[in-house]
Amino acid sequence: MLISEIRDYLGQFFGSVELHGGSDGVISGPAKIEDAQPGQVTFVSNEKYLRFLDTTEASLVIVAQGVDVDRYRERSAFIRVRDPYTAFMLLLQKFSRPRKIAAPGIAHTAVIGKDVRLGTGVSIGDYAVVGDGCSIGDNSVIGPHSVLFHDVSVGSGTVISTNVTCYDGSVIGNRVIIHSGSVIGADGFGFAPQEDGSYLKIPQLGIVEIGDDTEIGANTTIDRATMGSTVIGKGVKIDNLVQVAHNCRIGDHTVIAAQAGISGSVILGKCCMIGGQAGFAGHLELADRIQVAAKSGLSKSFPDAGISLRGTPAQPMREQLKQEALVRNLGSMKERLERLEAELRRLQEG
Amino acid sequence: MLISEIRDYLGQFFGSVELHGGSDGVISGPAKIEDAQPGQVTFVSNEKYLRFLDTTEASLVIVAQGVDVDRYRERSAFIRVRDPYTAFMLLLQKFSRPRKIAAPGIAHTAVIGKDVRLGTGVSIGDYAVVGDGCSIGDNSVIGPHSVLFHDVSVGSGTVISTNVTCYDGSVIGNRVIIHSGSVIGADGFGFAPQEDGSYLKIPQLGIVEIGDDTEIGANTTIDRATMGSTVIGKGVKIDNLVQVAHNCRIGDHTVIAAQAGISGSVILGKCCMIGGQAGFAGHLELADRIQVAAKSGLSKSFPDAGISLRGTPAQPMREQLKQEALVRNLGSMKERLERLEAELRRLQEG
Amino acid sequence: MLISEIRDYLGQFFGSVELHGGSDGVISGPAKIEDAQPGQVTFVSNEKYLRFLDTTEASLVIVAQGVDVDRYRERSAFIRVRDPYTAFMLLLQKFSRPRKIAAPGIAHTAVIGKDVRLGTGVSIGDYAVVGDGCSIGDNSVIGPHSVLFHDVSVGSGTVISTNVTCYDGSVIGNRVIIHSGSVIGADGFGFAPQEDGSYLKIPQLGIVEIGDDTEIGANTTIDRATMGSTVIGKGVKIDNLVQVAHNCRIGDHTVIAAQAGISGSVILGKCCMIGGQAGFAGHLELADRIQVAAKSGLSKSFPDAGISLRGTPAQPMREQLKQEALVRNLGSMKERLERLEAELRRLQEG
Repeated sequence: MLISEIRDYLGQFFGSVELHGGSDGVISGPAKIEDAQPGQVTFVSNEKYLRFLDTTEASLVIVAQGVDVDRYRERSAFIRVRDPYTAFMLLLQKFSRPRKIAAPGIAHTAVIGKDVRLGTGVSIGDYAVVGDGCSIGDNSVIGPHSVLFHDVSVGSGTVISTNVTCYDGSVIGNRVIIHSGSVIGADGFGFAPQEDGSYLKIPQLGIVEIGDDTEIGANTTIDRATMGSTVIGKGVKIDNLVQVAHNCRIGDHTVIAAQAGISGSVILGKCCMIGGQAGFAGHLELADRIQVAAKSGLSKSFPDAGISLRGTPAQPMREQLKQEALVRNLGSMKERLERLEAELRRLQEG
Repeated sequence: MLISEIRDYLGQFFGSVELHGGSDGVISGPAKIEDAQPGQVTFVSNEKYLRFLDTTEASLVIVAQGVDVDRYRERSAFIRVRDPYTAFMLLLQKFSRPRKIAAPGIAHTAVIGKDVRLGTGVSIGDYAVVGDGCSIGDNSVIGPHSVLFHDVSVGSGTVISTNVTCYDGSVIGNRVIIHSGSVIGADGFGFAPQEDGSYLKIPQLGIVEIGDDTEIGANTTIDRATMGSTVIGKGVKIDNLVQVAHNCRIGDHTVIAAQAGISGSVILGKCCMIGGQAGFAGHLELADRIQVAAKSGLSKSFPDAGISLRGTPAQPMREQLKQEALVRNLGSMKERLERLEAELRRLQEG
Repeated sequence: MLISEIRDYLGQFFGSVELHGGSDGVISGPAKIEDAQPGQVTFVSNEKYLRFLDTTEASLVIVAQGVDVDRYRERSAFIRVRDPYTAFMLLLQKFSRPRKIAAPGIAHTAVIGKDVRLGTGVSIGDYAVVGDGCSIGDNSVIGPHSVLFHDVSVGSGTVISTNVTCYDGSVIGNRVIIHSGSVIGADGFGFAPQEDGSYLKIPQLGIVEIGDDTEIGANTTIDRATMGSTVIGKGVKIDNLVQVAHNCRIGDHTVIAAQAGISGSVILGKCCMIGGQAGFAGHLELADRIQVAAKSGLSKSFPDAGISLRGTPAQPMREQLKQEALVRNLGSMKERLERLEAELRRLQEG
């Protein structure tokens, strides 16, 4: 892609796209500013990275409006635009080649059950197993070695990677991405304690519903409901190795980072951000737009939208930070206490 | 199932089963009280949920003896029984259809090694791989894409779901359930540090033994012993994404919630309850019936049966809660300290 | 293996190997000292275990030089050597039989893409899928049901177990071991927030590079870089269920225990030791030889090599232990404060 073509392409998205310096040439791909080689495009969005302008070998750098690039114009070309980060994202998409998870059509090694409805343009990879009564929408991809149990419904434009299992009855929306090794709809962890100390398995009769435009990372587990549905809302983004237990409801556009654990029947609001390794006790409820710091442990519900939480047990950020500061200063509190005791003794003795 | 049939069915388990109100009709399935539709059965066990009796549309509600249902008897039928929770569990089992993980018999795409012994009624799913020298007991199911390495022994009535790997020599009991993606018997994490900073792999020659009636969740990992066996006792219930390291021994009927991590050579007693994301340092030992709160970090052994633990490092619940309360009140302690300092200064100056 | 053969074998590694007591006989395998049966070999390295010499039934015990074994010489044979632990590791390797993950050659059920280069002695197991343009070095093993997407490069002597997925472009070194269920090179968790609350997927164009002699546990996930590479250094050992996010760089010979989570763009030095369930905030950097205690939560970089860290937020071990002791003693601090208040009141009133 020529530098001038990149300018024209970005011009479709931004009102003003100024090209400065350098000479028109072919850009082979994107790179981070500290790694970029001649022939590559990079960007600076954060002011901290402006120092790399002195040394980068990139042939093209996307910068914000107002950044002075005159002294570099012999070496590199520059595009100035209102939002260099988004501009670079658009270029990343432009340069990304679609991953080939499965060849078009149905691999002859795939096993397709009875009464399966397949849309147009569906790809089913080698050794995939699609159970009886499944339906798969237009242009969706089922990767090699993935298994859909019976009666699974997959929407259109969805990509299920390799070694994924979707248990019976799972309902998966449109334009969903599920990465390798994830397990959708295994039995929730429900057991009734018996008098002899053993446990009786509680049948898990429900399903999992996954909304449109969600992305689910690798080796994540989302359990089916005991009754009804475990619900992952629209546009939810879930990272790797996350546990979502039975009967949870995750609100639209909520983001959950790696290794977080959501216990049974938890309800998360919309547009929440859950940090990595955070944990939730069962049955609690979070309002919309709540941010939970990594490693926090939530033991109660928080009904106020938009707050930030941290700590174990988690509390609002300000209280938690105050408390952490007090703990860090315990040594000086102890010294002050000792000084007081000594002075009081002197007073008493004097 | 007719309401009168449900009454008769529960009558086999409970001395007294009273049917009130409503009219006999067909019940199609179970539901939570807040979601139940006409034609469904639900229950109230916890008094907090009695308020839903005003609004539920369920055709049949299981309640405790003594609950007054007279004003609802036009709308719904009620069954009064000593233990409505267990009664409802029994109905859940009655309504649950067996999951079809693999069709009866050996799929023609399955690969069966040499010297494999198969009991009667065994199902082996598409693309399953059963290594040389394995034995599989009567009526057990090996799901599609699961792999048994050589010399694996599986008991009777056991269900191994999809994409499960059981490494060589694993011994799996009767009526065990292993959910998708779990890995049984991979090498323990053992390395001997060398003088040049590198590590020498310590061969992991042992196996994993899994007792009867255990259930293991999805994407859980249980490592083989260095020598001898990693032992999962009878009736143990392990949730998703749990790590059980080499040489551990988990006592009978112990329950381990999601994402807990049990380091090498840990010994857990019988009937313990381990919360989600809890972690154990290596080589420690817990007595029977110990409860470990979610997210706790155990750094030493606890020999007293039946206690509750919490915190990092974990300590008995009472001490930990007292300590947490003290930390929460650090701000007021600091204020009292400042007041004391000021008053003392005044005394000294006066 | 005869006891005399074991003595001769160890003689190749140690200057002095003394055989005492017992009679020459066949040793069938190794065992822990508390479990060892007649016909087995065991060892004592830690003085705490010397007491087992009174009761062990092992036919051969490896002990350190200078350990007095005269009174046991009727019952067992003893080999005295400078480093009994390493001597026993050498015997473990001697007794370990190579695991048969896949038969030699290419299973006829494996799917091999176009333009695939295979070295000599490669084994590819049943139902493995090797994408277009992959290369696999001499004597490497791809286990049953593992999937290499297109353009994956695997070195020589590497063993990839079952149900592993390596996404497109992954570069895996020589003598690497990857256990079952791990996912190499899935998309990093990168999304650009949009004004309507939804997220735009940031294409993840980079790859994963795994150095020589690394071992990666079961169900671990290592994400591809956004641009460039996520790099796992040489000799790195990663346990089960670990998350390594996009753009991380893990230094040579660093060890990461189970369920640890390394957020995006973290740089770990060489020879670090990361405890289980530890978590790292994004973009931070650790110097060489840093030890991180289990469950720690790192929120900033540590540039000093060789230190030990613990706590959340993590700090140097000494400060953290001091702080933990202060928290444990908060009850007594509170009592001292109350006493001070009472005495001061008395002073003021008197």
